Amino acid sequence: MTDKLEVLRASVIALAEGKKYAALRDILSTMKPADIAALFERDMPEETVPLLFRLLPKNLAADTFVEMDSASQHTLIKGFSDSELKEVVDELYVDDAVDLIEEMPAMIVKRILQQADAEKRRMINGILKFPEDSAGSIMTTEFVDLLPGMTAEEAIRSIRRSGIEKETINNCYVTEKDRKLIGVVTIRHLIMADPSAIMTDLMDDQVISVNTLEDQEAVAHQFSKYNLIAMPVVDQEERLVGIVTVDDVLDVLEAETTEDMEKMAAIVPTDNSRPYLKLSVFDLWKSRIPWLLLLMISATFTGMIITGFEDALAKYVVLTAYIPMLMDTGGNSGSQASVTVIRGISLKEIEFSDLLRVIWKEMRVALCCGITLAAANFLKLLLFDRLTVLVALTICLTLIVTIFFAKLVGCTLPLLAYKLGFDPAVMASPFITTIVDAISLLVYFQFAIHLLDL
Amino acid sequence: MTDKLEVLRASVIALAEGKKYAALRDILSTMKPADIAALFERDMPEETVPLLFRLLPKNLAADTFVEMDSASQHTLIKGFSDSELKEVVDELYVDDAVDLIEEMPAMIVKRILQQADAEKRRMINGILKFPEDSAGSIMTTEFVDLLPGMTAEEAIRSIRRSGIEKETINNCYVTEKDRKLIGVVTIRHLIMADPSAIMTDLMDDQVISVNTLEDQEAVAHQFSKYNLIAMPVVDQEERLVGIVTVDDVLDVLEAETTEDMEKMAAIVPTDNSRPYLKLSVFDLWKSRIPWLLLLMISATFTGMIITGFEDALAKYVVLTAYIPMLMDTGGNSGSQASVTVIRGISLKEIEFSDLLRVIWKEMRVALCCGITLAAANFLKLLLFDRLTVLVALTICLTLIVTIFFAKLVGCTLPLLAYKLGFDPAVMASPFITTIVDAISLLVYFQFAIHLLDL
Repeated sequence: MTDKLEVLRASVIALAEGKKYAALRDILSTMKPADIAALFERDMPEETVPLLFRLLPKNLAADTFVEMDSASQHTLIKGFSDSELKEVVDELYVDDAVDLIEEMPAMIVKRILQQADAEKRRMINGILKFPEDSAGSIMTTEFVDLLPGMTAEEAIRSIRRSGIEKETINNCYVTEKDRKLIGVVTIRHLIMADPSAIMTDLMDDQVISVNTLEDQEAVAHQFSKYNLIAMPVVDQEERLVGIVTVDDVLDVLEAETTEDMEKMAAIVPTDNSRPYLKLSVFDLWKSRIPWLLLLMISATFTGMIITGFEDALAKYVVLTAYIPMLMDTGGNSGSQASVTVIRGISLKEIEFSDLLRVIWKEMRVALCCGITLAAANFLKLLLFDRLTVLVALTICLTLIVTIFFAKLVGCTLPLLAYKLGFDPAVMASPFITTIVDAISLLVYFQFAIHLLDL
Repeated sequence: MTDKLEVLRASVIALAEGKKYAALRDILSTMKPADIAALFERDMPEETVPLLFRLLPKNLAADTFVEMDSASQHTLIKGFSDSELKEVVDELYVDDAVDLIEEMPAMIVKRILQQADAEKRRMINGILKFPEDSAGSIMTTEFVDLLPGMTAEEAIRSIRRSGIEKETINNCYVTEKDRKLIGVVTIRHLIMADPSAIMTDLMDDQVISVNTLEDQEAVAHQFSKYNLIAMPVVDQEERLVGIVTVDDVLDVLEAETTEDMEKMAAIVPTDNSRPYLKLSVFDLWKSRIPWLLLLMISATFTGMIITGFEDALAKYVVLTAYIPMLMDTGGNSGSQASVTVIRGISLKEIEFSDLLRVIWKEMRVALCCGITLAAANFLKLLLFDRLTVLVALTICLTLIVTIFFAKLVGCTLPLLAYKLGFDPAVMASPFITTIVDAISLLVYFQFAIHLLDL
């Protein structure tokens, strides 16, 4: 994959330097937009990109532009004349134009809106008013709508007339005069149907739709639950205002997965429109330092617990050697439970009302895991580390209790966060580790005091 | 959502007990398959499910069946008569039938295959021969193929004849006599086109296709890269054998994300077709204990390091109190880097050839994070914990070096795993934490020895 891209890159640069523009145009014209964008972003000399871009046929140019990351789009637009910018903007679907505008600085946004025609500007502004990550913000307003009284033949004629500008014609929506959504009909149904059949008979009147303000993650969940390829978006009065298409849903899922993983790893989510290699050191620092700082400060408690038992530790120095193992095993056990529950919540497999069921299950899993690990460890402590039975018992009992609490905290906190309206993903390993560390040390020293007579 | 489901569940059970079958049928007929499946799986009395299932219209019954989890499918099939089973199997698309067969025990598989007609059995067996998680295993063989010489009018007529059995007609594939794939044409193009235009002129001959053996995750990546809704699958001779549709890709993405998150949390991936609440305690134990055991044993090294410096620790007991903070901060820093890189690899933003660039970036981020944390910590140690400057210095210098190594290990290991053909996701926090723990202790004691004259 990369190697092929490398070879292509080298020959494109050579052709550009040799001014073989006809050949370049031929090569680029057979490529897919996403591949051209990848080529442009792969260490292409900065002056070559605009040159190559101008060689692309108009349609392909716009599609390629959409696939580029925002930094490269920015560079390209800065070099555009007004008429070049207009050509690209004219070809963009409304939802792509909105995505572009959201990423660009104010000066460029102004230029883009100036180049859009009045109708497109109206549509862009209509979408821009919706909150970030809402269904309204990712929808397009270019869809096929049909009237309830139309016949299949009339519907197909209407699609032939206007379909070329629509993002998809696979699903068509039937609306009443006041734009109220009353049904959906697929192109398959229209083609299969008797030409004289009317929409009210052909359409499915159980339409799954979302409100403009619905969260994009919930929209994506509906797509996968109901196997959709497009979904209508309605306003508070149930009037059809746009559609979300499945290609945008794939992007949403990708971005949301990245965000969840970042949160689970104690990272403040970064700007998803920019790939890792284009993020600056400062960007990365900014997204990583807050949680590191917070978690470091929380570790103070763990330190205080150890300080409180300093005398005990001084008497039994050997106990110190097992602190990392106890803490790590506790952290790992807790994060297993929390990640499982976080994922279950985001797949809608687990609801807050399942809390007791989840706890009951995790408690039993915790006991099984705890006893297995403690047994293995007990043997190791006696046979290899040659500890006394009482010291080994102290460590192994701590292990069981730590795992028990770790799983309990790990499965409970995400559900509580969810109930309180926070993102459960934040309750993943790092957060839980800090809590479990403290618990495991307290338990350790209690067992030590009672079993070892400290 | 859940509350609505609760209310529905209660009224359905009441109607079933009152034998109001007509009313039940009316209610269920207006529902979507996924919602009926959710209702069946939501604590429905075991004897009620088959009863309700039999009330569903044939088509809806099959669609609902597909949406159920494998445990519920199993229960239902066990109660089916042969003719009931045949009715469901007849309605299933081939890819759904394959999914079902893959989850069922041998006895049930035999019954299912007996009920399928010869043609469907041939198609099912054709798909079953492909390895798990390959493009071949998730494709369907029910697609529209057209001949190169057909006109648009003929093509539409052909679709009207056979389209009803196809999983989708939105993309149609043009094949030569030997079934070699030469182009793709969308239903939109067919409808818009001059009725006498022929396929070779209408079709896009730059078709993006995958080989039957390609990994399903790579297939999903192509869908999101090229904004596809269906993708043709070809064999080694470039002959068209099936298509993958976007609804299956959404399922693949969901399953792969779950698997990645599980691996990152040191869980051996569980059976994804069963939701958390249906997994037994033993299933969960089995998926969690291997890594816990392995990581616990690896922690032995950390213990050995501490034991080796027991005398030093006995002299400066205060040093013990900061071990958890150093280890946790190291672990968190490392997991931030590793999760970022793992995600970058799976989004194809980072390749192995970027290794040096990634390391250079992470080294600078590590220094920035390290210095920030060390500075904050230094003040805290002097002002609140009232340590001497030398002890505070020991701790803070260790912090900087630990973070540096943590980020280095965190960004390098996933790329190395990727290069060697392993799943980078395994190189996430738990694994890295264990390594970083050992490094951070070694650094800690070295600084202590030199700065504190131990």
